[in-house]
Amino acid sequence: MSWRHGVAAGCLLLHPGQGAAEQPDAKPPQWTERAPGVWEATFGAPERLTLLGAAAQPPKADALRSLPAARFPFEPGEAVARPGAHRVALRFPLALDEEIYGLGVDFKSLRRTGSALRLHVDHWGGVPGRTHAPVPLYVSSRGYGVLVDSARYVDFYVGTAVRLEASRKPPVVDRTTGGRAWSAQPRSDSVEALVPAPGVRVLVFGGPTPLDAVRRYNLWSGGGALPPKWGLGFMTRTPTAYSAQEALAEVEEFRSRGIPLDMLGLEPGWHDHAYPCSFEWDRTRFPDPRAFLGALRERHVRANLWFNPYVSPTAPLYAKLLPFAGSHLVWNGIVPDYSLAEARTIFADHLRREVLDLDPAAVGGFKVDEVDGYDRWLWPDLAVFPSGHDAEQLRQSYGLLVQRLIFDMFRRANRRTLGQVRGTNAGASPFPFVIYNDNYAFDEYVTAVANSSFAGVLWSPEVREGDGRDMLRRVQAVCFSPLALFNGWATRTKLWTHAAVVDDIRSAILLRMRLLPYWYTAFARYHFDGVPVVRAMPLVPGFDARVVEAKEQYLVGDSLLVAPIAPGVKTRRVVLPAGKWFDFHSGRLVGEGPTTVDVTPPLAHIPLFVRDGGLVPLVAEREWAPGPDEVLALELRHYGARPGTFELYDDDGETFDYERGEHSWTRLVVDRDMRGSWKGSVTPDPSGKPWRYRNVTWRFMTAP
Amino acid sequence: MSWRHGVAAGCLLLHPGQGAAEQPDAKPPQWTERAPGVWEATFGAPERLTLLGAAAQPPKADALRSLPAARFPFEPGEAVARPGAHRVALRFPLALDEEIYGLGVDFKSLRRTGSALRLHVDHWGGVPGRTHAPVPLYVSSRGYGVLVDSARYVDFYVGTAVRLEASRKPPVVDRTTGGRAWSAQPRSDSVEALVPAPGVRVLVFGGPTPLDAVRRYNLWSGGGALPPKWGLGFMTRTPTAYSAQEALAEVEEFRSRGIPLDMLGLEPGWHDHAYPCSFEWDRTRFPDPRAFLGALRERHVRANLWFNPYVSPTAPLYAKLLPFAGSHLVWNGIVPDYSLAEARTIFADHLRREVLDLDPAAVGGFKVDEVDGYDRWLWPDLAVFPSGHDAEQLRQSYGLLVQRLIFDMFRRANRRTLGQVRGTNAGASPFPFVIYNDNYAFDEYVTAVANSSFAGVLWSPEVREGDGRDMLRRVQAVCFSPLALFNGWATRTKLWTHAAVVDDIRSAILLRMRLLPYWYTAFARYHFDGVPVVRAMPLVPGFDARVVEAKEQYLVGDSLLVAPIAPGVKTRRVVLPAGKWFDFHSGRLVGEGPTTVDVTPPLAHIPLFVRDGGLVPLVAEREWAPGPDEVLALELRHYGARPGTFELYDDDGETFDYERGEHSWTRLVVDRDMRGSWKGSVTPDPSGKPWRYRNVTWRFMTAP
Repeated sequence: MSWRHGVAAGCLLLHPGQGAAEQPDAKPPQWTERAPGVWEATFGAPERLTLLGAAAQPPKADALRSLPAARFPFEPGEAVARPGAHRVALRFPLALDEEIYGLGVDFKSLRRTGSALRLHVDHWGGVPGRTHAPVPLYVSSRGYGVLVDSARYVDFYVGTAVRLEASRKPPVVDRTTGGRAWSAQPRSDSVEALVPAPGVRVLVFGGPTPLDAVRRYNLWSGGGALPPKWGLGFMTRTPTAYSAQEALAEVEEFRSRGIPLDMLGLEPGWHDHAYPCSFEWDRTRFPDPRAFLGALRERHVRANLWFNPYVSPTAPLYAKLLPFAGSHLVWNGIVPDYSLAEARTIFADHLRREVLDLDPAAVGGFKVDEVDGYDRWLWPDLAVFPSGHDAEQLRQSYGLLVQRLIFDMFRRANRRTLGQVRGTNAGASPFPFVIYNDNYAFDEYVTAVANSSFAGVLWSPEVREGDGRDMLRRVQAVCFSPLALFNGWATRTKLWTHAAVVDDIRSAILLRMRLLPYWYTAFARYHFDGVPVVRAMPLVPGFDARVVEAKEQYLVGDSLLVAPIAPGVKTRRVVLPAGKWFDFHSGRLVGEGPTTVDVTPPLAHIPLFVRDGGLVPLVAEREWAPGPDEVLALELRHYGARPGTFELYDDDGETFDYERGEHSWTRLVVDRDMRGSWKGSVTPDPSGKPWRYRNVTWRFMTAP
Repeated sequence: MSWRHGVAAGCLLLHPGQGAAEQPDAKPPQWTERAPGVWEATFGAPERLTLLGAAAQPPKADALRSLPAARFPFEPGEAVARPGAHRVALRFPLALDEEIYGLGVDFKSLRRTGSALRLHVDHWGGVPGRTHAPVPLYVSSRGYGVLVDSARYVDFYVGTAVRLEASRKPPVVDRTTGGRAWSAQPRSDSVEALVPAPGVRVLVFGGPTPLDAVRRYNLWSGGGALPPKWGLGFMTRTPTAYSAQEALAEVEEFRSRGIPLDMLGLEPGWHDHAYPCSFEWDRTRFPDPRAFLGALRERHVRANLWFNPYVSPTAPLYAKLLPFAGSHLVWNGIVPDYSLAEARTIFADHLRREVLDLDPAAVGGFKVDEVDGYDRWLWPDLAVFPSGHDAEQLRQSYGLLVQRLIFDMFRRANRRTLGQVRGTNAGASPFPFVIYNDNYAFDEYVTAVANSSFAGVLWSPEVREGDGRDMLRRVQAVCFSPLALFNGWATRTKLWTHAAVVDDIRSAILLRMRLLPYWYTAFARYHFDGVPVVRAMPLVPGFDARVVEAKEQYLVGDSLLVAPIAPGVKTRRVVLPAGKWFDFHSGRLVGEGPTTVDVTPPLAHIPLFVRDGGLVPLVAEREWAPGPDEVLALELRHYGARPGTFELYDDDGETFDYERGEHSWTRLVVDRDMRGSWKGSVTPDPSGKPWRYRNVTWRFMTAP
């Protein structure tokens, strides 16, 4: 007997007002292959505003074509949809041994099976699905991904809800006598989703591996972000009410102490009115913004300027944007409807005139705050907007729209940017913005960094304050995150407050600077090939995701396994995927995976491992990123017993000229020569495009 | 300039698919006075299934007519609605000095201004709006109430979202320089609500006081629950796998120790299959259920039987309910669609035959579990049901529907019941069910007890385990809650485990038994007049809700102020409303309000205060509730310096004959005689209906 039996018995009493969403008939979708390994299906009438549409970045078609062939992951009839008048129910198969990742940057776990989530842009407060990046993409351990491209609060049920009609059901066990055989949550055979919209477009990304699926998603979204070289340096943010003079003095402190610095963040006080914002320089604290920016430029530092997008009635910009305002205010400021091109243009033009044009080489980007915020802070879900998109759609896409307008503005100036953003969503892969938040739980932020690899976003923890050892461990961790950042906006603590650890803090940041070619190449791979810069362990070959979650470690680039160690912890466990792994500093063998090892690093070192045959390019210690024409000496470290290859990326580091082919991939190879000794070789880019390094020094870190 | 300016400028780009919900035109509702002080308005096309409709209890029209006249609380145009195709936006005015209560049984606070809530039946997990009783009723300090009668997840924004068009807006302050003048959350002039449905019915309950509004709500819902007398005694719940023999031995333990007991709870193990449930006695543990129930009856104890409503495929009931099952399972059991009368009848008939009919005088009721549960445990929001009502509607009303079918079943047998339930909603006032949950935070459960008075529900904390003093303080608190309960289903702890406190525990429960006439009258007032048994302080005259929240104390009946003291706490603060308050035990003056006092009660006493002129009727200590014909001696305590009156309710305590007039209200008055001495007098019910008390002993507790 089945549920349909009930229907046949005449119990289905559909009410006219309920609409077809209640109808039990599920139709198999029609899938169209939009690019190799990228399939799309449409259910009902999708809304005008989607997430990929809000991001509006063209897919990287060529790169998609170069990926290995993939087969469609579902059998006919396995994926079904039940479109209704106002809601679409989706169902995809889930195998018994299948693990699901993604569905937003969660801070607690990588694994999603067993969870019921409503994806909702929000600060991270522990509610599943509410996060800074609730990207409706899931990635299966079986090597495919599914994106539900809706700017709605989409519900996902990942293996939680067993259907009456399911052919394979979990066993029925009496709880009183069943002991451990009884489960509080029997596992279903499906991932189900509910989209509260009249229609939706779904994309499926093929494998064969989970990493391939992620790559296809990133490339379909436009390829990963490629920051400027200086964006890989160190950022510090000043206290909120700092003046130009105080900000420059802060830069001098870094320089005098030899602590690297590339970016200086100005917090709300650069506006003459903040919360809501004026987007006008405060002339008491910044009497001559152009001179201030020039002084930063001379010191090799870029400014990053904070704002939230809610416009103060006190601002000249207000009258211009008022016709585009939503029905409700945020901190008494209007909420411009940036889904409208005209509103985006007005805002971008203002930022350009008021900030960027003052000194284009000195303005690095913006920090886009409060696009994630509490429901009780932002506009309510019943707000209305001039575009006709509703409050929910704007909430889900607002961070995307602001990133897009800033990215477009910098692109038009042919200057790269690196910014920060607190709320984002699907389609953001190409945006050079790093998510941040107020969480300060060390283990949670490591998990978030790892989880960001399933979402096409970048995430960095922050260092704000703490005792010396606490600060040091946090600095080490942020230096192995996409953005290396100290955020001093609301603290009196400085990086050098604790004298006992200041040398180790400096060393951690200098190591970040030394690894600049490695990081830059990792970002280039993200951009051109869709490979995430940071990869959670389930995206790492040789890691068995069914055995252990390993949510507090990740890979950076192809070779570096990072296991951040929390303040106050002496020993931590590290999961090593298959193969031999070597200590970054000593080159010594640490273990051969699959296995786990317990490591007790000195206070000066973050646990850092290199895979067998791994090549790691480094430059000399330096305090800021190199300029477009600077030529640097390169050191190439080789680890382990296997030969290795590294394709080193380079370009001018500052402009979008790389999009017109102005970049190079240089092949670095280590192999044994005829006598069995290690030998390194350099093969220039076949196009003849230059790289900006001098002769290579080869270091064979593991005994030959 | 205003948002409408933007519209006029041609920026309103309504998409055909978006529907009228996006239209900015708000219409003033048409209010109809359905009963004195009860107004109703309909927006769009309300759905078939509403909360009041699911509860389906007729309003107490006569009682509503006897309430003081009330004026409609809003001016024309102040309350507006924006109905759309699938969503209705509502807006009601909120004054600057107005406080809002209700919107579900929250465990953290009474006050609701400043919060954004999505009301959702769920366990309490700290997410605002997700609670066991997310009743969409709010009560204003200005003396009115608003019910949004929708079985949907309704969003409420209580003073959080300032509108661009608002005529009165908070000041715009620069955060950097504004100091404390800047607010993270500017207060709006509205309560706004979003109902995700094509239409909704809204009810407004007039005052003049907040208590009057609550009374009108309860009476409109059918009047408050009147439990049987034995339901005011003590309940204990046995470990889950107890046999009949063990359960009876547990009763003997109570009797041998002189600890009162009226109700014995059987947990999952009475079923031969639980989670999902069979609703069949387990014949290994309960070989002769009828004999077992008979043995309980002989010991003056009623059985209360646990279930969750999800039917096991192993059960005979399964095949009967399968045609009414929803599309998804819970613990592999079917989810019957109890919005269908036929399904309710099948289930109630089974409970009656399998349980109630075995010994109607021994079966007290049921414990309805898991109708609140985690999203990842219950059916998903995309499930479909044979009635055509959808998963969300069933989720919001499921507890109501099960209470209704049980209540109806007992009513047909002319036997009152008292049950427990984990999920309920608006319209539940007449259902004799007490909410419970797994929270064990003492201060939170006191707040929940208080908050239940804004929701037309009953809530009791539990005692489960703890050290001796912990257990004692918890027992004292539950004895001043609607249901006095020890829940030992999953613990080895017994009430007598800690010998040092067992006498004090017994005393606390005996005091509960002594106060039985007081409690019973309070429930009668709830039933006939809509006055909550437990009242949060904002419902108490003489309490200034603007000054202090006082969320950890409440009034029971008209005269007893209860301030539960947490385990481990020696001294607590108590807020005294206007007038003199006296210690319950000594009759001494404690303070004259409005004021606060710090009290340091002995371990044996819960802080308990009586208002000036308060009369408290007591009976002698006893171990179980009196039967229908039992006649008891009455002690009447008077406190303070003012004369006092108490209308004592009585009836048979077991049947619904009171609905046919078989009840009495006896007037007890204390006043000074001509010589200035206190004198008590008894005026029988004018109808001549009897009461079941012997001569009254008057005790004047405060020195004359």
